[in-house]
Amino acid sequence: MKKHYFLPFLLLPYLAVCQTNPTTVPIVTAQAESFYNLKDSATVQQIYHEALQNGKAYGYLRYLCLNIGGRMTASPQAEKAVKWTKSIMDSLGLDSVWLQPIKVPHWERGKQEKAYIQTNNGKTDVPICALGGSIGTGSKGIKAGIIEVKQLSELATLGEANIKGKIIFYNRGFDATKFDTFEAYSGVGDQRRNGASEAAKYGAIGVIVRSLAQNNDDLPHTGSMSYQPNVPQIPAVAISTNGANLLSETLKKSPTTQVYFETYCQRFEDKISYNVIGDIKGTEKPEEVIVVGGHLDSWDLAQGAHDDGAGCMQSIEVIRIFKKLNIKPKRTIRCIMYMNEEFGNKGGIGYANYAEQEQGRLKHIAALESDRGGFTPRGFSTDAPPELLTKMQFWLPLMNNYGISEIKKGGGGVDITPLKVVGTVLIGYVPDSQRYFDLHHSTADTFDKVNPRELALGAAGMASLLYLLAEYGVQP
Amino acid sequence: MKKHYFLPFLLLPYLAVCQTNPTTVPIVTAQAESFYNLKDSATVQQIYHEALQNGKAYGYLRYLCLNIGGRMTASPQAEKAVKWTKSIMDSLGLDSVWLQPIKVPHWERGKQEKAYIQTNNGKTDVPICALGGSIGTGSKGIKAGIIEVKQLSELATLGEANIKGKIIFYNRGFDATKFDTFEAYSGVGDQRRNGASEAAKYGAIGVIVRSLAQNNDDLPHTGSMSYQPNVPQIPAVAISTNGANLLSETLKKSPTTQVYFETYCQRFEDKISYNVIGDIKGTEKPEEVIVVGGHLDSWDLAQGAHDDGAGCMQSIEVIRIFKKLNIKPKRTIRCIMYMNEEFGNKGGIGYANYAEQEQGRLKHIAALESDRGGFTPRGFSTDAPPELLTKMQFWLPLMNNYGISEIKKGGGGVDITPLKVVGTVLIGYVPDSQRYFDLHHSTADTFDKVNPRELALGAAGMASLLYLLAEYGVQP
Repeated sequence: MKKHYFLPFLLLPYLAVCQTNPTTVPIVTAQAESFYNLKDSATVQQIYHEALQNGKAYGYLRYLCLNIGGRMTASPQAEKAVKWTKSIMDSLGLDSVWLQPIKVPHWERGKQEKAYIQTNNGKTDVPICALGGSIGTGSKGIKAGIIEVKQLSELATLGEANIKGKIIFYNRGFDATKFDTFEAYSGVGDQRRNGASEAAKYGAIGVIVRSLAQNNDDLPHTGSMSYQPNVPQIPAVAISTNGANLLSETLKKSPTTQVYFETYCQRFEDKISYNVIGDIKGTEKPEEVIVVGGHLDSWDLAQGAHDDGAGCMQSIEVIRIFKKLNIKPKRTIRCIMYMNEEFGNKGGIGYANYAEQEQGRLKHIAALESDRGGFTPRGFSTDAPPELLTKMQFWLPLMNNYGISEIKKGGGGVDITPLKVVGTVLIGYVPDSQRYFDLHHSTADTFDKVNPRELALGAAGMASLLYLLAEYGVQP
Repeated sequence: MKKHYFLPFLLLPYLAVCQTNPTTVPIVTAQAESFYNLKDSATVQQIYHEALQNGKAYGYLRYLCLNIGGRMTASPQAEKAVKWTKSIMDSLGLDSVWLQPIKVPHWERGKQEKAYIQTNNGKTDVPICALGGSIGTGSKGIKAGIIEVKQLSELATLGEANIKGKIIFYNRGFDATKFDTFEAYSGVGDQRRNGASEAAKYGAIGVIVRSLAQNNDDLPHTGSMSYQPNVPQIPAVAISTNGANLLSETLKKSPTTQVYFETYCQRFEDKISYNVIGDIKGTEKPEEVIVVGGHLDSWDLAQGAHDDGAGCMQSIEVIRIFKKLNIKPKRTIRCIMYMNEEFGNKGGIGYANYAEQEQGRLKHIAALESDRGGFTPRGFSTDAPPELLTKMQFWLPLMNNYGISEIKKGGGGVDITPLKVVGTVLIGYVPDSQRYFDLHHSTADTFDKVNPRELALGAAGMASLLYLLAEYGVQP
């Protein structure tokens, strides 16, 4: 019955290529199964049953979100999360659990931001928040006329004459026609990341960036920005999508509209924090390491439930399931809670440095990251070469009945990307992305937005793929 | 770029069957495209873009849920919904819009129900609601000892000696290991539908049924039950899953535990209501009708957002998109807002009777129902014969980039099932099912649980499949 769902699709290209009469198609699963065996099929089913019946990821996430809360890098909550996840790993009976010290940036939002739109008709408050890394205005705030642009390239056309002394308002929204909202997100990210320095080059005194959000609501979404060297640093804020729409409409009616905002954010001395690392040692090739992880830090505005508490707790759930079911992987499975993905990626870079130093001893063959939310599964993306991709796709029938319908060409995740220096194959867990950018980096990213079954299905899919990778390695 | 995601998977079985070197696979889409053409591909993309950029389904649903509200069959709200959906269809410039009168049952919940568990230690209130169709207890209520069972078959073993004068408590929960939660729902439905009459045969005075819900919370979930002829009618209620867990634990400690409940529900005279029907006449084969629809009625407890406001508004959105894009289907597309799916299916049966009478004039070749919630798309299920199923599966590449990853063997939907008498191919839209039974038939089924993009993607997938069916018909 379960195989049944997959077969028609599996046969599809066969019909197209081999020109067989569609009514007399042969069964091709026999061939596909040469890439795994019946024991694998049973193991994958046990993994899913354990996750769906006795799963702990949701309980872990509840604690992380509700008892610890938002985990901004260098915050006391981030340190609590380090200790707590280490204690969970310690309790699981792993072969080793350790902390890797990482020097991380320290930035704080400070007092609640304020902003209003001012026209001849008066003031209208709008919801804003400082972007991560920005300088603050302090209590005096800044107030200036507004130039709205959709593209950074418009700045050159406008030139210093139009921009000097003004606030640049970047208002390019998501492309709604993209099914993959991460693609749409990529299409607007330059405004937030580089908008301030680009505008400062033409004399702007501040920037307001439309929140990188899919929906229209009143929540500003923060996120990282950075300043280019030798360019004046100007304050940068995000405005809610409703606020951006209002500001844009107001500007159409009253081009002389001004905006005031005040922010209290500040950069402090770097601190020491940690990646939390735990291993299940491989039985046959312990020197071949397969990483699974997410990032423990979040933004300060929310609980960091989907971003990336979900991915962290799924990663811990993977190793819990391995231990609970007594699965002994042939290659080492290493679970990493990365620190500081949101604002510098120091944990990811630091771990890759370590992996590079240890190259003689350890071979990081693959890394799987879950950092696209804890939503219902779609599949995986990977930068694996074609032969390995094909090999992994042959495993799909094992997971297809649980919503994993594709393994496609694509990226892994921010934390694991630096591992490319040691030739690691990068894999990203891909859940459904429709709801993610409604809550990403905003106060809406809370525990109640996570569905326990969706979270568990993701953890089980990840555990299944890791089991197969540990069993068969990354050679085609 | 978009094709790219699909190709590796498309090639998969080819590799298996034809034993080609994976590094030198040919492109097979050319063959697949003989089942559709480039115009179709462009049309499907236009449909998705319209739904995602200018979609109206979410706005329609907001009105239905927040301005009209729950639409229990024979209620004033159901009548409002009939008038309002007819007015929307009237505004879309269809070729005809009409109301089909349907005699429907009339049952009302009456005053808020009450229940408590009584042990030697005192009373504990528990959340219950009457099941649809049940008789009420009135203000005197009923109070009795409890017999917990997991299967209806246990009743025969227990026998009248143990059951007489007692309340039967059906406490079989969902099988969490099923990915498709509708499968899990099917596995527990007999308790709610037949539990009362089965228990009454052994002298039970009432039944309490564990809510047919996936999660654990405090909300009772209603749903239809019916009485068998010549069996005493006893009151039936649903208890929240947390309440069921509490009752079960209490019974383990104190087998003499009693439960009291009072319900005020009542059956009234049947009423006349309506199916709302609107057509876009086919340009080449107008006599071949393809139905798209959902059910306008809901339970009284909630807004009926996912069940099935979503399916209704998606169906109207389908015809809106056809009109907006000036798509002229070769076969007639008929949009139907069915009445009374939840509690008798009189609309579905009544429409099938009509279709049967009109067989000489109209051929109902296919019907597509959306009644599994407005969540992110997975695909379609259908009872189409293998050759047609294969033909439809060849259309998948057109929709695969928007989350439609499968067309599998399966059912259509309750409303359209009676059309089987005229040989109609039944198709069900299949969204992701993980969240559905957390809210189904409970107060949690509200507008805020619907994501606009997920709803729009469903409507666009439905419109695309309907367009292709209208273009190519159901002959293999």
